[in-house]
Amino acid sequence: MTRKVYMNGSFVDEQDAKVSIYDSSLMFGDMVFEMTRSFNGEQFKLREHIKRLLTGIKIFRIPLEETEDSIYEKCLLTIDQNKGEFKDDDEHRLMIDVSRGLLDIYKGVDGLHKEANLIIADFPLRWTVKSMGILFDQGINAFISSQRAIPARYLDPKIKNRSRVFYLMANIEAAQVRYPNTWALMLDDDGYITEGTGDNFFIIKDGVVITPEGRNILRGISRDYVIYELCKELKLECVQKNIEPYDVYNADEAFMTGTPFCMLPVTSLNELQIGSGERGPIFNLILKKWSENIGLDIESQIKSWDEGNNDKNIGTSPYQFSKK
Amino acid sequence: MTRKVYMNGSFVDEQDAKVSIYDSSLMFGDMVFEMTRSFNGEQFKLREHIKRLLTGIKIFRIPLEETEDSIYEKCLLTIDQNKGEFKDDDEHRLMIDVSRGLLDIYKGVDGLHKEANLIIADFPLRWTVKSMGILFDQGINAFISSQRAIPARYLDPKIKNRSRVFYLMANIEAAQVRYPNTWALMLDDDGYITEGTGDNFFIIKDGVVITPEGRNILRGISRDYVIYELCKELKLECVQKNIEPYDVYNADEAFMTGTPFCMLPVTSLNELQIGSGERGPIFNLILKKWSENIGLDIESQIKSWDEGNNDKNIGTSPYQFSKK
Amino acid sequence: MTRKVYMNGSFVDEQDAKVSIYDSSLMFGDMVFEMTRSFNGEQFKLREHIKRLLTGIKIFRIPLEETEDSIYEKCLLTIDQNKGEFKDDDEHRLMIDVSRGLLDIYKGVDGLHKEANLIIADFPLRWTVKSMGILFDQGINAFISSQRAIPARYLDPKIKNRSRVFYLMANIEAAQVRYPNTWALMLDDDGYITEGTGDNFFIIKDGVVITPEGRNILRGISRDYVIYELCKELKLECVQKNIEPYDVYNADEAFMTGTPFCMLPVTSLNELQIGSGERGPIFNLILKKWSENIGLDIESQIKSWDEGNNDKNIGTSPYQFSKK
Amino acid sequence: MTRKVYMNGSFVDEQDAKVSIYDSSLMFGDMVFEMTRSFNGEQFKLREHIKRLLTGIKIFRIPLEETEDSIYEKCLLTIDQNKGEFKDDDEHRLMIDVSRGLLDIYKGVDGLHKEANLIIADFPLRWTVKSMGILFDQGINAFISSQRAIPARYLDPKIKNRSRVFYLMANIEAAQVRYPNTWALMLDDDGYITEGTGDNFFIIKDGVVITPEGRNILRGISRDYVIYELCKELKLECVQKNIEPYDVYNADEAFMTGTPFCMLPVTSLNELQIGSGERGPIFNLILKKWSENIGLDIESQIKSWDEGNNDKNIGTSPYQFSKK
Amino acid sequence: MTRKVYMNGSFVDEQDAKVSIYDSSLMFGDMVFEMTRSFNGEQFKLREHIKRLLTGIKIFRIPLEETEDSIYEKCLLTIDQNKGEFKDDDEHRLMIDVSRGLLDIYKGVDGLHKEANLIIADFPLRWTVKSMGILFDQGINAFISSQRAIPARYLDPKIKNRSRVFYLMANIEAAQVRYPNTWALMLDDDGYITEGTGDNFFIIKDGVVITPEGRNILRGISRDYVIYELCKELKLECVQKNIEPYDVYNADEAFMTGTPFCMLPVTSLNELQIGSGERGPIFNLILKKWSENIGLDIESQIKSWDEGNNDKNIGTSPYQFSKK
Amino acid sequence: MTRKVYMNGSFVDEQDAKVSIYDSSLMFGDMVFEMTRSFNGEQFKLREHIKRLLTGIKIFRIPLEETEDSIYEKCLLTIDQNKGEFKDDDEHRLMIDVSRGLLDIYKGVDGLHKEANLIIADFPLRWTVKSMGILFDQGINAFISSQRAIPARYLDPKIKNRSRVFYLMANIEAAQVRYPNTWALMLDDDGYITEGTGDNFFIIKDGVVITPEGRNILRGISRDYVIYELCKELKLECVQKNIEPYDVYNADEAFMTGTPFCMLPVTSLNELQIGSGERGPIFNLILKKWSENIGLDIESQIKSWDEGNNDKNIGTSPYQFSKK
Repeated sequence: MTRKVYMNGSFVDEQDAKVSIYDSSLMFGDMVFEMTRSFNGEQFKLREHIKRLLTGIKIFRIPLEETEDSIYEKCLLTIDQNKGEFKDDDEHRLMIDVSRGLLDIYKGVDGLHKEANLIIADFPLRWTVKSMGILFDQGINAFISSQRAIPARYLDPKIKNRSRVFYLMANIEAAQVRYPNTWALMLDDDGYITEGTGDNFFIIKDGVVITPEGRNILRGISRDYVIYELCKELKLECVQKNIEPYDVYNADEAFMTGTPFCMLPVTSLNELQIGSGERGPIFNLILKKWSENIGLDIESQIKSWDEGNNDKNIGTSPYQFSKK
Repeated sequence: MTRKVYMNGSFVDEQDAKVSIYDSSLMFGDMVFEMTRSFNGEQFKLREHIKRLLTGIKIFRIPLEETEDSIYEKCLLTIDQNKGEFKDDDEHRLMIDVSRGLLDIYKGVDGLHKEANLIIADFPLRWTVKSMGILFDQGINAFISSQRAIPARYLDPKIKNRSRVFYLMANIEAAQVRYPNTWALMLDDDGYITEGTGDNFFIIKDGVVITPEGRNILRGISRDYVIYELCKELKLECVQKNIEPYDVYNADEAFMTGTPFCMLPVTSLNELQIGSGERGPIFNLILKKWSENIGLDIESQIKSWDEGNNDKNIGTSPYQFSKK
Repeated sequence: MTRKVYMNGSFVDEQDAKVSIYDSSLMFGDMVFEMTRSFNGEQFKLREHIKRLLTGIKIFRIPLEETEDSIYEKCLLTIDQNKGEFKDDDEHRLMIDVSRGLLDIYKGVDGLHKEANLIIADFPLRWTVKSMGILFDQGINAFISSQRAIPARYLDPKIKNRSRVFYLMANIEAAQVRYPNTWALMLDDDGYITEGTGDNFFIIKDGVVITPEGRNILRGISRDYVIYELCKELKLECVQKNIEPYDVYNADEAFMTGTPFCMLPVTSLNELQIGSGERGPIFNLILKKWSENIGLDIESQIKSWDEGNNDKNIGTSPYQFSKK
Repeated sequence: MTRKVYMNGSFVDEQDAKVSIYDSSLMFGDMVFEMTRSFNGEQFKLREHIKRLLTGIKIFRIPLEETEDSIYEKCLLTIDQNKGEFKDDDEHRLMIDVSRGLLDIYKGVDGLHKEANLIIADFPLRWTVKSMGILFDQGINAFISSQRAIPARYLDPKIKNRSRVFYLMANIEAAQVRYPNTWALMLDDDGYITEGTGDNFFIIKDGVVITPEGRNILRGISRDYVIYELCKELKLECVQKNIEPYDVYNADEAFMTGTPFCMLPVTSLNELQIGSGERGPIFNLILKKWSENIGLDIESQIKSWDEGNNDKNIGTSPYQFSKK
Repeated sequence: MTRKVYMNGSFVDEQDAKVSIYDSSLMFGDMVFEMTRSFNGEQFKLREHIKRLLTGIKIFRIPLEETEDSIYEKCLLTIDQNKGEFKDDDEHRLMIDVSRGLLDIYKGVDGLHKEANLIIADFPLRWTVKSMGILFDQGINAFISSQRAIPARYLDPKIKNRSRVFYLMANIEAAQVRYPNTWALMLDDDGYITEGTGDNFFIIKDGVVITPEGRNILRGISRDYVIYELCKELKLECVQKNIEPYDVYNADEAFMTGTPFCMLPVTSLNELQIGSGERGPIFNLILKKWSENIGLDIESQIKSWDEGNNDKNIGTSPYQFSKK
Repeated sequence: MTRKVYMNGSFVDEQDAKVSIYDSSLMFGDMVFEMTRSFNGEQFKLREHIKRLLTGIKIFRIPLEETEDSIYEKCLLTIDQNKGEFKDDDEHRLMIDVSRGLLDIYKGVDGLHKEANLIIADFPLRWTVKSMGILFDQGINAFISSQRAIPARYLDPKIKNRSRVFYLMANIEAAQVRYPNTWALMLDDDGYITEGTGDNFFIIKDGVVITPEGRNILRGISRDYVIYELCKELKLECVQKNIEPYDVYNADEAFMTGTPFCMLPVTSLNELQIGSGERGPIFNLILKKWSENIGLDIESQIKSWDEGNNDKNIGTSPYQFSKK
């Protein structure tokens, strides 16, 4: 048996889930997508992910005839198809891809799906987070890459799209640093902190949770959850505003959010410790609340999947480049 | 029978030439590529294309174990494989794609090519240019899109890569204009003209051929051929320098270059005529020389493939978006 | 009989209201101005307009010996002079112009007013809005022009001045678009939305009224009225903050404000519908309140002046360029 | 008797040469223009001025039905009309104004010229240069204003247009400086020197004449004459390249060019002397050649018109603002 | 007797308080510092100053083994050492300097302190403010220099460091202006007001106290005191936001804050009066409160030290350059 | 005995060569300087260094009463004073510092030199280069720091000044990289390569020597020597133009120049090899010529001073920060 991937109306074996080289996505990075996760098998914020996907489809003007509901149904169906392929302690990570389909000039090729594509894959979350357990203890060393975030006026990062090879370029830089557990953090043109390469950044100062304005970043679903739900429930003030490295050096705590790992502490910036240099109490508070809300211990679960990879900087970031 | 595509050591049917959804190219637009063409069946400047490809592979740090020679051989082999699939009056358009392969975290998926990909497709050039014949007579109306070129300091366009959805965004804008035969032309941050969405731009003023500096553009192989060979042979002065819209409005002639069509006249900018508003004498001179050099009449050949598409703005640009 | 224009102390026939070619205004666009309107014959926010005019006079250092009161008096006097020239259903549109006067080097020319000019014209509002009635039903298609707003650090748009030919350049671009009812909307250097070419822009999201910060825009009197009075009276939250196209695509409603038409719905941006693509409920609420406050139905009045111009894109914007 | 101004087909008395307040030029600074001069009564480079005017008319899309020849004829005719009004030692300064005419919405006003305007005035050059004689001896103190030149990407200064109130703003700054004979010099966004407020800037270093690239400046006719004719005749190398204040501080000489005064020495920048702090030998060489070429002593003529104004900083720049 | 300066563990005579030419501070401006003052002999906000110093030490990675407490003690000790050297009506101005010490390559030089330096000097405040008394009455004329503030993305001004020669460049410009009492005020790249060259800027509009965001400025201790304590105590609303010159021209009052003088009124910007052109009531309110809080009349004390320097523009700014 | 330093007219022992904490240089980094070297005891290009120093003195308006000749004499005198203190195989490195002197407000301090300072130190060159021998063989790994060069419009790097703590910040980044022999290379705002932190950068492509335009860099004396003398003598084409990282990745060779070491090969950029990854033939050619011209083997001499420091990244750059 094998995992199945939904592709434009039918299910195919995972290794057959492929896109034609003539597809617009492989010509331009012309694809919008979402990646979700489950807790105890229940998808988290799936509708929010689909809503964001639809915004990208609209702005990219991809002629896909689907609604929030129809995509939602197909996601559930895909999970259902794959039930037997997951271990009991696994969580489902969905990847939902939408591309424009074949460019006009290639429509003469026989046997190809020519219209816009909707693809939904479902694979174990542990793939992504298997070497992250240690980061809950050691914390991430954030590293300001010379690669800057592409400002929204050129290509809006708020659209979760596949035209983002500069994320890889930032990761490559981070991998050149001596210090272990180093993840890239990008500045924008003005020197404001934006985001990691697949994660959002927060600091805590004098009890206030602060995160960059939702401008030159992807507005992560986990980011929204922290801002609009967890902080509210915990009665923590949370503000979105421009942050500079100076503010991070002066912060009491810092962390990253991302769908697969939820939250990870950032304990230094460019090797200078943030606050005590240890994971802090407000991080703990938020993570605990999150775990309570979804009914499982997020940190323990990730640690339970640990495969003992101790090669630092390799595999720590979910989007790490392939390094010899 | 069907066309065959080279994929990592073997040949597959064209409709099976596909890339896994877990490939880095479909995650980040992390792919470098080349597209070539033949004249009378002979590939034009194939080695120059491969050299540029290798530069991209280097900078993106894609671990592909190939040399200029080995890729060259595989290109010829691919053409050879497909000989029977082409009409006598067809030309071969190669598409050479290189991607990093599966991201680390997906390497557990069975049955997938896990390392860097080299893919070579070969299809009839007529697909790309079939509705361009008319443009030799009517000329292109270049349109300054509000979409700006992403400056090289963020993502270097000199690397021919697939992380370029902003090209599509510019094309979408151009398709909103009333005027027929409108193609997008992008400015950079400073207001200098860069390139079209897959073509390079030239003006002619007082007998001098002028094209933007090779900075925020792809340095096209056709562009190089015009600058370093054709102009030299014709004893035309050719300079690379910053060009502003003002200079275009004051030019005597203008044209675009691109591999599939070689050269097309640009007769207006934002609907204001350039020079006489007609295709000009130096354009004719260069195109004639090019035709002589490669031994066939470029314009007549493209016109011979014309399929009578008279719906203006649709299909005129080779990278036109799919519009209802 | 004919309308009269106040010019530096006396009244002249409208066709004689002219400025010397040696005046600083015709040398540099060195003029500040205001344009007002009446409701039921009563000038609306006339003192606010004059206050803004005085700020411009101060910063431009125009040596005009007038106060808020003295200009106010002259405005009323001008309306009084022209009473007989207006139809019963007309409204009075005042144009108040202030220029520096003759440049020093031209002061030797005989017979010319040499000092700073104060000119007040009064003409029927219907001239400006006569083809706008349809826009209340169809809505405006806002179009992001490649022409960017000149940032305030070069020339402050908060000073209502006549050195604004770039407004025309944006209008010319908008007129090239296929879609009817298209009005230009300018971005600033950072990609934030600024204003139309004579109107301010608002969006509504989740019940909150949002408009760009008063930075690279003219802070319109109508804009102020919506923010500081109408929204307050309606208990609508209204915030001023940076808006990007992404925010507009995600908005529920959008509208423009401007003195002559008060408010007009914007139902699409670059041809992508905003919200339902129809004029929305909060727009209706605000417009209704405005009509109530000033005691006439704004929309009906404008529609009553409609002269049946159905040539789309021509004449829809009050500052439309003259197109054949 | 009085001087006559050509206005749209007829001649009017100079004091009646006026533009309606409803004209587009008085709405937006929407006017292109030229100002010329004669030597010994012969217009200098009149056709070059008209060519530049036509470029502006084209880009602004002003629907004026005139050709280079027809405007040229009207210029000569205007001079002819005014012959009797000039002293024997006077030179003719022409001002040629072109505006779009009445905005559409004001076309209902009776008795006004509604179409595009062509206006040609002719007045004594001495008005402009009467207090400049002393500057040939003392030199100008150039002053870097905080007012930056508006970059061409917003509004192209190569179009000689009337939307330039920022020139006045720079002049106002210059007038606040203690040092006599101070003229404003504007930087662009990158800190490169652009131009004065109506004049072009040159430096001389090691025998080479250097002037800013023709980008964020008006490409003056006098500038062109120095670059393409005088330097060539004198076998002086002349290059156009980016200049920074540092280069000026290190220069051997500097000067401004402008139509009315031809050339004036700049002997200090921000009160720091350039070279010897005196007018230099290459300046003298070029000015001498210019005088020879046109058959009169430029400097002596201007000094002969001197009216003894010794109030420094007042009236020294031709576009000086009116200061009490 | 003479004043003593603390230097790395011992006290030296003031004239011997010197730094080796091989010290990093004299190589790169690589020094962080603080300057404080006393009221009635009591240091004001000394701990806040030291905290800021420690942030700079951290970000510059200066290996100094000191804590807030240990530096605090040394400051008190230094004052104690110098008690006898101050007049009864003097206040103590501390200067605390920290530098990295000798660069590695110079460590071979004998007899030099090789590690990081901590230097504490104590001198009479009257030196700094002796000619400022008059400014309480006449107010400062703020002058927008063409010298822009270096944005924080290059070098963070929030670190109080000695790499700031551009402050001097701005002062030199201000000294060229005719108007008396002129102090430089710098804009940032976006045209927002930042700070003076050693002082923070505030405006008051409609009763609200407004000061630039703490971004491209030093966040002065006096600035913090006004924002977080004095305004709170006086129930004045105080906001930090971007301010443009336009806002200053429209303000009711303006003032500068700085440690030595506390607060000084700014009564004009570029010679255009702010509000009434006189020192305003809210300024008075805040200054009065400050005086009350610290138990002496700030203004009278400074005036009591006045030495009758009436040479305007010379010596008015504490960091004024040495002008002949 | 000990080395002597010239200070304002007299000679002091090296360990007494110190600057008052009240000097403008220690307040603002307000110092211009030069550092030279000898070959076989003869100063190289000493007059060129002094000329550049005088330009800085002029622009900073430091009131120092010295000429090129008088400084030159004092340099020679200083060397003479120290003759006995150098080994036979030593070379003389001069450091010439000029500062404005005491700020006005500190002029009351007794016993201090109050006017502008001229300081000349003379120490063995081996201090600076003692661990660089290995770099001739291994080459430098240039690293693009996230620290950008401060553009000349804020603070002109062409003035060799001491307000450059951002150089240190870039060095600190470089020291965090795993790869040995890593030196920082800074980009400017546009992404062009500028310089190292005390060295100039060159590439060689197809036999042409290329170096960044002399804009956002210090125009090094060694750089000038390569461009204007060595390349000329060797008949190598040498051009100054904008270079991007892309150009470096495509280059055949690269090197740095700096006064102490003359030239060092750069064999990789961000760990990607340049050309063959080895020191190249044109580098050898130029270095050989340089050695010939000055009559000693530059490389061998530096290697002869090697002290066996094998701790990579520590001490390799002459301006390396002090790292534990």
